[in-house]
Formats: sequence, C-alpha cells, structure tokens
Amino acid sequence: MSSSDIFIGETIGTAVLTLLGCGVVAGVVLKQSKAFEAGWVAITLGWGFAVLTGAYISAPLSGAHLNPAVTLGLAIKGGVEWSKVPVYFLGQMLGAVIGASLVWLAYLGHFHAHLKDREIVGGPGAQDTVVADRQQAGDAGPVLGVFSTGPEIRNVGQNLATEIIATAVLVLAILTQGLNGDGKGLGVIGAMITAFVVVGIGLSLGGPTGYAINPARDLGPRIAHALLPLPNKGGSDWGYAWIPVVGPLIGGAIAGGIYEIAFA
Amino acid sequence: MSSSDIFIGETIGTAVLTLLGCGVVAGVVLKQSKAFEAGWVAITLGWGFAVLTGAYISAPLSGAHLNPAVTLGLAIKGGVEWSKVPVYFLGQMLGAVIGASLVWLAYLGHFHAHLKDREIVGGPGAQDTVVADRQQAGDAGPVLGVFSTGPEIRNVGQNLATEIIATAVLVLAILTQGLNGDGKGLGVIGAMITAFVVVGIGLSLGGPTGYAINPARDLGPRIAHALLPLPNKGGSDWGYAWIPVVGPLIGGAIAGGIYEIAFA
Amino acid sequence: MSSSDIFIGETIGTAVLTLLGCGVVAGVVLKQSKAFEAGWVAITLGWGFAVLTGAYISAPLSGAHLNPAVTLGLAIKGGVEWSKVPVYFLGQMLGAVIGASLVWLAYLGHFHAHLKDREIVGGPGAQDTVVADRQQAGDAGPVLGVFSTGPEIRNVGQNLATEIIATAVLVLAILTQGLNGDGKGLGVIGAMITAFVVVGIGLSLGGPTGYAINPARDLGPRIAHALLPLPNKGGSDWGYAWIPVVGPLIGGAIAGGIYEIAFA
Amino acid sequence: MSSSDIFIGETIGTAVLTLLGCGVVAGVVLKQSKAFEAGWVAITLGWGFAVLTGAYISAPLSGAHLNPAVTLGLAIKGGVEWSKVPVYFLGQMLGAVIGASLVWLAYLGHFHAHLKDREIVGGPGAQDTVVADRQQAGDAGPVLGVFSTGPEIRNVGQNLATEIIATAVLVLAILTQGLNGDGKGLGVIGAMITAFVVVGIGLSLGGPTGYAINPARDLGPRIAHALLPLPNKGGSDWGYAWIPVVGPLIGGAIAGGIYEIAFA
Repeated sequence: MSSSDIFIGETIGTAVLTLLGCGVVAGVVLKQSKAFEAGWVAITLGWGFAVLTGAYISAPLSGAHLNPAVTLGLAIKGGVEWSKVPVYFLGQMLGAVIGASLVWLAYLGHFHAHLKDREIVGGPGAQDTVVADRQQAGDAGPVLGVFSTGPEIRNVGQNLATEIIATAVLVLAILTQGLNGDGKGLGVIGAMITAFVVVGIGLSLGGPTGYAINPARDLGPRIAHALLPLPNKGGSDWGYAWIPVVGPLIGGAIAGGIYEIAFA
Repeated sequence: MSSSDIFIGETIGTAVLTLLGCGVVAGVVLKQSKAFEAGWVAITLGWGFAVLTGAYISAPLSGAHLNPAVTLGLAIKGGVEWSKVPVYFLGQMLGAVIGASLVWLAYLGHFHAHLKDREIVGGPGAQDTVVADRQQAGDAGPVLGVFSTGPEIRNVGQNLATEIIATAVLVLAILTQGLNGDGKGLGVIGAMITAFVVVGIGLSLGGPTGYAINPARDLGPRIAHALLPLPNKGGSDWGYAWIPVVGPLIGGAIAGGIYEIAFA
Repeated sequence: MSSSDIFIGETIGTAVLTLLGCGVVAGVVLKQSKAFEAGWVAITLGWGFAVLTGAYISAPLSGAHLNPAVTLGLAIKGGVEWSKVPVYFLGQMLGAVIGASLVWLAYLGHFHAHLKDREIVGGPGAQDTVVADRQQAGDAGPVLGVFSTGPEIRNVGQNLATEIIATAVLVLAILTQGLNGDGKGLGVIGAMITAFVVVGIGLSLGGPTGYAINPARDLGPRIAHALLPLPNKGGSDWGYAWIPVVGPLIGGAIAGGIYEIAFA
Repeated sequence: MSSSDIFIGETIGTAVLTLLGCGVVAGVVLKQSKAFEAGWVAITLGWGFAVLTGAYISAPLSGAHLNPAVTLGLAIKGGVEWSKVPVYFLGQMLGAVIGASLVWLAYLGHFHAHLKDREIVGGPGAQDTVVADRQQAGDAGPVLGVFSTGPEIRNVGQNLATEIIATAVLVLAILTQGLNGDGKGLGVIGAMITAFVVVGIGLSLGGPTGYAINPARDLGPRIAHALLPLPNKGGSDWGYAWIPVVGPLIGGAIAGGIYEIAFA
C-alpha cells in the first residue's frame, strides 16, 4: 500500500467512523432528535456499526486501522512497517476532526436548539463549571460528550486502567484475525466481527469512561469541539484529554506484546 | 441483466424494503400494536433488516439497488449502464408504492383504531395543521410518519445537508463492496453488511430528518399516503417532499465522485 | 436425505426453535424473570436467534425447514419432493409440542408464581373471559401468549391478511437463497440471514397478530398449552387457532408462486 | 494442538469472555456507570459478544471451548482427546478468575461508589441476609450478580432443569458446527453464530437462573468474588454454587449423547 493510499484511506475511514460514532451520541443526547434518549444499547450499536462502515470503506485502501492503538499493535506484531506509522496517525487525526465537523454540520440545528434550552437553566459561567462533572453520554447535559469521552468517576489511575484493559481486548481481537483465515486484514467478515467486538466492549467496559479505546477518536473530536462555533458550549476538558490518548496506546502495546508471546 | 429482470427485481425488492421499513414505523407508532413504543433501536433495526430482506431477495435479478441514489452512484462509478438507470428508477418507485400499500393493508385495523383515538383529541382541521410539526416516528401523532420522513427542526439547508451526508456514507459503503472481494454486487455477505450500515446510519444520522437516504423510499410511500383511503389522515406534507428526493441524489453523486477520485 | 433424517432433524430443530421462541416470551411476560418487561426488541431478537439455533442444528439432517409454510413453498419450487412433505410436517408438529413443553419445564416455577399473582386480581372464571382479549406478549396477562399468538384487534380478514403478507416475505427470502451462491439450503450464512429476516418481520409486521408465520410454531404450543397442567391458565383460544395455520400456508404458497413466475 | 497452546488459549479466551461478560453486568447494575439500567437486551448482547471476542481470539490456539460443558460435549463426540480435557478445564478456570479480577479492576471505583450507597440503606449484617434473595442482574442490589449467577426463584430441581436445558441447546449448536462446512471448530463464522446463539439462549432461557451454561464462567468469578477486597460485598452464596457447575455439565453430556444418536 502506498503512503498516499494509506493517508487517504485512513482519513476517509476515520472520518466515517467519527461521523457515525459521534453522530449516535448527538442523536441520543440532543433534544428534538428522533433518537433522543434511545439508551446505551443504541449508543453501543451505533459505535459498532460506525466501525463496520468506516472499516469496510477504507479496507481496500489502507487496511482500515482507523485507530492509532491498532496501528501500534500491528506495528509491534510486524503487520505494518514502522515508517508508515506516522502516515496512519496523520490520516486518523485528520479524519477524526473531519468526522466530528460533519456531525456538527448534520446536527447544527439541534445543537442550537439544545444549547438554547440550557441557557434557561443557568448562565454560561455556571455551565462551564458543570462540564467537568456531567460529560455523560445519555443525559441532556453538556455537548462535549457528543465529541469526546469523559469519566463518570474522575480518577487518573482508575480511568487509565479501564481504557488500557478495554483497548487491549480490542487490539488483541484485531491482531488474531490473520490467524482465523481472514488474512487480508480487516476484510468483509473481519469488519463485521470487529464491529460486534466493539459493541461488546462498549456494553461491557464502556460504563466507567465511555470507552475511547482510540486516541484519534477522542482527541480529534475534542479539537473540533474547541474550534467549532457553538454558543454556550462549555469547555473542552483538556485536563482529561491525555488519558484517552495514553491509555489506548498502552493497551495497544500490551496487546501487541501478548500476541508476540502467546500467538506468534 | 435484462431490463425485465431489473424491473421485476427492483419492484419486488423495493416493495419488500418499503413493506418492512414502513411496517416497523407502523408497529412502533400505532396504538394497539404489540410493538407500540418499542423505541428508536426497534425502528433502526427494522429498517436495516428491511434492507437485508429486500436486497437478498432481489440481488439475483437486479443486483439489489432498491434506491435511486445507489443507482446513480453506481452509474457514476460505471457499475451500471446509464441506459438502464430509468428502468431501475421505475421499478424502485413502483415497488415503494406497492410496499407502502401492503403496510396499509397489514395494519389497516390499527390505522383505523389509531385515527379514531385522534378524533377525540381534536377535529380534522386541527390535525391538518399539526401534521407539519409532529411527523415524528415514535410518537402517537399523525400517521404520515409511517409512510414518509419529516424533519424535527424544519430548515431547508440543514435538512438537505443531513440527507446528503447520510446518503453519501451509504452509497460509498456500497460502491466499495466490489473492492472487498464480494464482487457480485449485493451478494450474501454484502446484503448483511449493508443492512448493518443502514442500522448504523439510522442510529447516528437519523435523528434530525428520519433518514430517507432513498428518494423512492420517501416519495413512493408519500404518494401511497395521498391516495390510500384513511379517515382523518392529515396532509402529505408535499412542501417537504423534494428534500428527501434531491438530498439523497446529491449524496449519491458525491459518493460516486469520491469513489472515482480516491478508490478507482 | 432419508425420511428418518428429515423426521429427526425437523423434530429436533423445531423443538429448539419453539423452546427458544416461546422461551423469550415467557422470559419477558412472566413475573420474577430476569427478562421481565425487556420489551419488543428482546422478543423479536429472541425469536430470530431461535430460528438461527434451530436451523443451524437441523440443517445437516433435514435442511432446516422448521415451518410447514417453508416446506410448502419449497415443494412448489421443486426444492423438496411432495412425498416427503408429510414427513416434514409431522416432525415440525412433534418438535413444536416438545419445545413448548420444555419451556413449561424451564419456567415452571415462574408460571406458578405468575399465575398465583393473577388469582389476587380475579377468579378463574373472570380470567377465562379475559383470555380472548389480552393474549398480548409483553404484558403480565394470560400465559397463552407464551405458547401461541393472538391478535391485538380481532378481525378474521385483517388477521389473515397480516399473516399471509408476513409469511410470503419470509418464504420468498428462503426460496431465493439458492440463487445467492449458498445453494446448500439453510447453510451457515443462510441460517444467519434467515434469523435477521425473522427479526425484521417481527419488528415490522408482528404488531397486529404476533407473527405466527409458521403453523407448527403456533398450533404445536397451543396443543401443549391445552394439555400441560398449569393452575388457572385460562382457555387456549381455539376459535383463533386456524388463522395462524391457514394464513401462513397461503403466504408460503404465494411465495412459491412468485418465485416460479419471477425467479425460476 | 499442544497442551501448552490449549492451556494458554483457554486461559486468554476465557479471561476475555469473563471480562466482557461480567463486565456488562457491572456496567448495567453499578450506579454511576454510563450503562446503568441499560436492560436485559444489553446484558444478553454483552454476553454474546463476550463469547464472540473470547472465541475469536482463542480459536487459533485452543479451538475456543471456553466452557467445560463444551469440552465435555466435544469429548463425548470424539472431537477432543479425553487426556486433554483436564488441560482445557484448568485453563478455563484460571481464565475465569483472571477475567473477573479484571472486571474488579476496571470497575473498582464504581464498586466502591455503589457499595457506599448500600451502607446508607442498611448495615452490613442486613445486606448479608438479603444477598440470597436479590442476586438479580439489573437491580442496584448486591454485587455478587456481577460475578456469578443466582436464581430468581430458588428451587434445586427447577434451577438444575433450566441450566441443563439451556446448556444442552448451546452445546448441541456447537457440536453440529462441523457438519455445516465450517469444520475448523469455532472459526470466523462459527464464532459469530455461536455468539448469536448465546444471545438467544440468554434472552429465551436466562430469565429463571441467569444462564450460567458454563461451570467456569460461574465458579471462577465466584472464587474471585470471595477473594477480592470489596467493602460490604456480602456473601458468595456457596450454597447455590454447585448448581451452575453440575447443571451445565449434565446439559453438555446430554448434548453429546443426542449428537451421537442423531447426527453421528
């Protein structure tokens, strides 16, 4: 795969992943959406099928990593050249910003209607202080949860541990795909299985931190949240931003290590 | 594929698609249905498996487009001859009218029971004015939502943008199928993946407009709504009708363009 | 396939189908069940995966019809010899009675606890008259709904129409499987697709009558309901029993006819 | 397969199975989790995709039994040497303890927050006596339900019968996989089908006992519950512990017997 194919594939695929993934949170948390309060099953299915769609579209171009933690795990396994790793990362970050911006565009009227309702409850200053405590997907609170993850109980060690464990499961499932006779990376069946693995991780390990399990999926939309014009949007919670980057990278590296020891 | 096979395949397939798709909305919004208020996950799964069933049945005859936006995207890609495009369109429109009429037949008693309840709340005149504001799948309001989509927040630019984005994702996922070793168009696995992609688009981008993402799926049932006898049914909201036709066609064309630039 | 393999396969497969299918209704409607009030999505997924499991187990022995309407449609298509049809029917009916009896066994304590609660509300006589009106899956009413289907709005023509339409879709989807390169009848992928088709039919067309779409699935458990000892169980609603037998058989025959005209 | 591959594969696979499986219960029952009260569909999907993930990862090493009842059924069928059976059992038990411990780690803050809330309601002594009656997944009661199953209605014969029936269905579906052209044990498609079979069993037969259907999945986490430090955690209900071990083993043996008689 050429570097340009990798870059284009990862950009398009991660844009689709983030568009559908952040989109389902927008649909569930923003008022006047038909999906309003559709629940956690809706959110986890939405993220799973976001992975399916993004992976399926980008697989022929770039192999559909769509996640720096996956790229790192595959590089440790030897499934991707280290020199290509920065190309993957750049495409993933660019795609994640684009995808989150498309969510902003698709739900712009709903963001405005939702944020207008918030003003009734409290002033902008009050909202800012609430942001840190209530980035919860599924409530009608701050809109940051549409873009990026946030923990229910804020604790660096605990939050890191949860992200590391969840990402290690994801990356291990992707690394072992080649052993299951589906050797062309994330192919047709592989994309479907990965999608259901992601639904499962969301249902099972998403409760504490909202399962970033992907540095690009969290950091890209957070940048978009900081840059895009939205009245009364609150802060972007930069104090937490490093955890869904570092945790998944550690998890991906651990999965690569387990693979090398047990499966290689 | 012969023109007659294409026409018959698209008619049968789109009829099944629309029967099951509009059927799930009927089941969820009409009173005295066992599926009453089953929620947004039920609606999005129902539409996804409607695509699965319609695509699976029609794939051997017509390749299972079932959607003018898909046909347009495939024509731009070169996957279907331009001379066949009108045959696809005609079959899709006829099938959509038939499918919506079968929903009317399968739920006729429920339509009557539901509309009878509405009379208690207000007179027919009052209902007509409410139609524009409450075509919401999932509430017990007007029955137009069983047939056609309507926006939660009415804004031409916004509604068009949402339909364009959602359809571009759908068509791009279908165009790239040939690259994933499932070259026979919408085959066995392809139909299943497309179904889950449609569930994902519904969960993630259906909130604002109800995701027509298919001109035939929206216009055909709207015609059926206008023609079929239902007491107190309200208007067919023709002022909105062009958006779920034009938006998806633009989205399909954009997907065809992206495919030609990035994947061809 | 030998007649004994067909008989054993259909008996085991339909027993598993009915065990899991009636089981999910028991789980959702009986009090003190962990699945109590889990909703219509739970019921439709449960029936879909019941088909998957029964079909997957019985496919190597009998081709996994599990449904007289499917056998009839396949016989019209020429996919099964007419002389074998009674063997299929007998196995399906026996299996359905066995499956429903296993549900009785697995949930016996819950049936007793649930029916005991009912006695508080009204006497056995009162319950009997209520049975005809409230066989609704999803409420805490009569237990007949665990075994057999019943309409929300009782109307012979309407109820027949709904069962005919829903079954025609199911059988058409099964008849076209051979054309999608999965020629071994209900094979691995075919079983999965059929399962999701059944989930879709349940979500979309199950609202009015509870989607028997299978004469054995309805009549077998109704016989079990009549025979099995359950205190205060109410009547078996024999007045309705012919509709979920005749409707699906007509639907299966129509699907066979459509297949012969359009696909053969 | 070498004994070391079997042991490592079963340990890793059962750890992933138990991590995701017990994890979804933690997510749904523990307060301040984003998945709180997400319902029975969430729990059954979570367990199903836990099987998918664990099976997919471990299939190339050990064939992905992950369940002593499956190993027993396969041994009766002749699909695994009896001398390897203890190796499977040991890996499965070790993996289940590890997986449950990882749930403890991933949700530690939530366990503490949840148990702290319980102290307000009653003293530790009061909680201990309640444990036996309320191990119900889905309520905000004792945390034992995160780790191990418990019946809604406590009755040895009834609870055994339910576990036997449910496990026999599971193991029969796995034993017949080799006949469906997916002969490499739990391969790519096999893992997906087994996952949906498990979702179906949970929806349909999980209501009475919480469907252990796997001695390791129940006993391993129960040991972890007894050993791990959690304030005010209540007892481990050892009086019930033998039923989800013996019931599934009997069910697996019955499935092996049915296979030998009807399919071999």
